[in-house]
Amino acid sequence: MKIGDIPVETSERYQLVSITDEVNKTVREAGVGEGICVISSTHTTAAVTVNEDYDRDVPRDLAAACRAFLEALDVCFEHDEGNSDSHFLTSLFGQSQTLLVRGGALDLGRWQGVFLAEFDGPRRRTVRVAVS
Amino acid sequence: MKIGDIPVETSERYQLVSITDEVNKTVREAGVGEGICVISSTHTTAAVTVNEDYDRDVPRDLAAACRAFLEALDVCFEHDEGNSDSHFLTSLFGQSQTLLVRGGALDLGRWQGVFLAEFDGPRRRTVRVAVS
Amino acid sequence: MKIGDIPVETSERYQLVSITDEVNKTVREAGVGEGICVISSTHTTAAVTVNEDYDRDVPRDLAAACRAFLEALDVCFEHDEGNSDSHFLTSLFGQSQTLLVRGGALDLGRWQGVFLAEFDGPRRRTVRVAVS
Repeated sequence: MKIGDIPVETSERYQLVSITDEVNKTVREAGVGEGICVISSTHTTAAVTVNEDYDRDVPRDLAAACRAFLEALDVCFEHDEGNSDSHFLTSLFGQSQTLLVRGGALDLGRWQGVFLAEFDGPRRRTVRVAVS
Repeated sequence: MKIGDIPVETSERYQLVSITDEVNKTVREAGVGEGICVISSTHTTAAVTVNEDYDRDVPRDLAAACRAFLEALDVCFEHDEGNSDSHFLTSLFGQSQTLLVRGGALDLGRWQGVFLAEFDGPRRRTVRVAVS
Repeated sequence: MKIGDIPVETSERYQLVSITDEVNKTVREAGVGEGICVISSTHTTAAVTVNEDYDRDVPRDLAAACRAFLEALDVCFEHDEGNSDSHFLTSLFGQSQTLLVRGGALDLGRWQGVFLAEFDGPRRRTVRVAVS
């Protein structure tokens, strides 16, 4: 198993940041022709997701949908850091994504890319990529 | 790693289509006794999910819940294809699912099955199954 | 592949129960130094999620967010067991999570832990842990 860490710096509270190029670079450096790639957030208020990485409006719309969803949620949270919304969205999006590796590269569909999904930014984040 | 593609044709905008039999067929043909099976959507507006594959009302209710959720969401999307709802639901359900293979078959719980979750149909979709 | 089953008993309808210690015990007993750990719910109304396993308010707030979300959802379900909400949340949280194993233990971030996410309790549940 080859492991690499990708640093990501975010600038907004809710923000999807493309890491497709960085993950692909890690996969190529791993030198694995065919296998599995696990891309993990090491955090509890940021997730990893696979979605369209072509039109810049898509990641912006995903963040806007999250904002609208949480603003409408009528709930009184107890966690005193004030970021229970961030924890909730992290569980919904998922802490990691598993992709295939073929021909030494990520096996992505035509429009697919990989994103860090920030839900409590701005922050410095670390995404872990393991290829086996 | 053995890889097979499953074609799926959907007929509604939001629709869960069982692919349990097709995935199991791919797993049996792979000839792997014990291992891991990754079932991926190659799309950004359709997901893969594991849920009850017995009572036909369950996948219908899941699609109904998605419709009610998105209809109530007060958000103005910018992506001009008009399917940001589909991208959002795909990230929530997840682009892929990982299941175990035991005894040469999918290791599913009593009521579990695998579904393509269509969020921008009707369309022709491809689900990729990798067994290792 | 080493496989272990973890029994979990839940006491509320929506409840996140930490299984971090039990999963780590299973991983240590598997004797795998480096690899992948798949943690699966064998059920269709309970999920597995990775989130903060430090402040007890976080899992409580996650359950509260789920309750507020589903109570506000204006939908008429057809499934006559009356637990379509549980099926929906299971698909949103995810039936399984994939973590890395390093140094013979789960490779978790500082605050991360593993939870069974009960959405139709109280019940006796089984979580399957596979290490390879």
